Amino acid sequence: MTRLVRIQTPKGPRPGMVVGETIHACADPFAETLHPEEVLMPLREASLLPPTVPSKIVCVGRNYAAHAAEHGADVPVEPMLFLKPPSALIGAGAAIELPPSSSQVEHEVELAVVIGRRARRVRSEEALEYVLGYTCANDVSARDFQRKDGQWGRAKGFDTFCPLGPWIVTDLNPSDLMLRAWVNEELRQKSRTSLMVFDVPTLVAFISEIMTLEPGDVILTGTPEGVGPLRPGDTVRVEVEGIGVLSNPVRARP
Amino acid sequence: MTRLVRIQTPKGPRPGMVVGETIHACADPFAETLHPEEVLMPLREASLLPPTVPSKIVCVGRNYAAHAAEHGADVPVEPMLFLKPPSALIGAGAAIELPPSSSQVEHEVELAVVIGRRARRVRSEEALEYVLGYTCANDVSARDFQRKDGQWGRAKGFDTFCPLGPWIVTDLNPSDLMLRAWVNEELRQKSRTSLMVFDVPTLVAFISEIMTLEPGDVILTGTPEGVGPLRPGDTVRVEVEGIGVLSNPVRARP
Repeated sequence: MTRLVRIQTPKGPRPGMVVGETIHACADPFAETLHPEEVLMPLREASLLPPTVPSKIVCVGRNYAAHAAEHGADVPVEPMLFLKPPSALIGAGAAIELPPSSSQVEHEVELAVVIGRRARRVRSEEALEYVLGYTCANDVSARDFQRKDGQWGRAKGFDTFCPLGPWIVTDLNPSDLMLRAWVNEELRQKSRTSLMVFDVPTLVAFISEIMTLEPGDVILTGTPEGVGPLRPGDTVRVEVEGIGVLSNPVRARP
Repeated sequence: MTRLVRIQTPKGPRPGMVVGETIHACADPFAETLHPEEVLMPLREASLLPPTVPSKIVCVGRNYAAHAAEHGADVPVEPMLFLKPPSALIGAGAAIELPPSSSQVEHEVELAVVIGRRARRVRSEEALEYVLGYTCANDVSARDFQRKDGQWGRAKGFDTFCPLGPWIVTDLNPSDLMLRAWVNEELRQKSRTSLMVFDVPTLVAFISEIMTLEPGDVILTGTPEGVGPLRPGDTVRVEVEGIGVLSNPVRARP
């Protein structure tokens, strides 16, 4: 099990690997075997960036029956796909900015899958071989625009609406992990990935049949029930068992 | 007026500039002023790639009233946004592949806007200063999935479903250009960009208020009426006045 990060350095973003409390360089996170290189800095001093630079972020809607139900929607018979723009990504600790145009921005804890090698029309039986690892995501959503627009490009696409991190954990079994989300000290969401309508191998195979997945691409696997509003001054924490906690403050867009 | 291309070479993709019938190198298409560098090859021998490598492709739905009407939809009161994945891009001459899972894949001619410098919350009055130029796009769509899925991630996201090119034309006024689409010799779509519900400056400003637009990013500005099916063996040509013709053969996915 390896924890892969991207950190801000005076020379720009660098990929790294967490060993104990220290971040080491890791020039190629997609290499066959991963070795820690020179020490970059202590983990507690690092400014963590989103742990991958995806060419696309593919999202799955209504992939937990209890969340579909809380919006009065049916569970889809096939995975329902939409995209978030890479410009929405922020890392751990960065602020989610509430746009003045929306009056209902909500959190959504999700397990994020990070692709390790190009996947094109792969079978579900082999799908996990194309996965680099897993991280925590918050699919921040402007619910008012989601209802109003029909398509979710605006509701899900604002800058800062895709917190991702704190790191990618390799060698994790995604089939039954606990997901939780807190706003301040209040537990809002709690479920398990075993309750997904379509599991990770099914999703990777289904998506790769449609669009080629590139190394670094991200799949957001859907959120369980319990979504709720974010307000300026809140701190939202999303946790996936075996990965860690992704924490982001919330503020009004300056 | 400059024509910017990307071409395949033995050393990989290279940006270039068309001068007469010749392609010259052009190391930085985003530079303040563009100068042709060394000759790369004659235009007629070139394998044209999609002329930009976008971090995202932002699309506008129902931006021509007559097209919204042919699908029985209302014209939206604000631009309706969705995304296509960069993995869907192909250049001029490359084949559109019909996936076996869809029985209704259709063409959609669109004016594509290519961003020249980072645009974040720009006003419509200054929006065109952030545009590098314009090219032709075909927003290929699996209409059956579009109706069935609710969100359009699958319907619009298949590999090869975003032909773009043949080149980017700078210094073009986008306000009243003729758009046409032919399948084989049959004219299927014919309209003018002056009939857009939301014009290019309005779209750039609206989108940049939501998500930061990066150099190279693409906005597909919507299609007019006349969309129709594509079948194996067809050739589909989309033309935007002042840019040129983007031609792609159609085949069943091998």
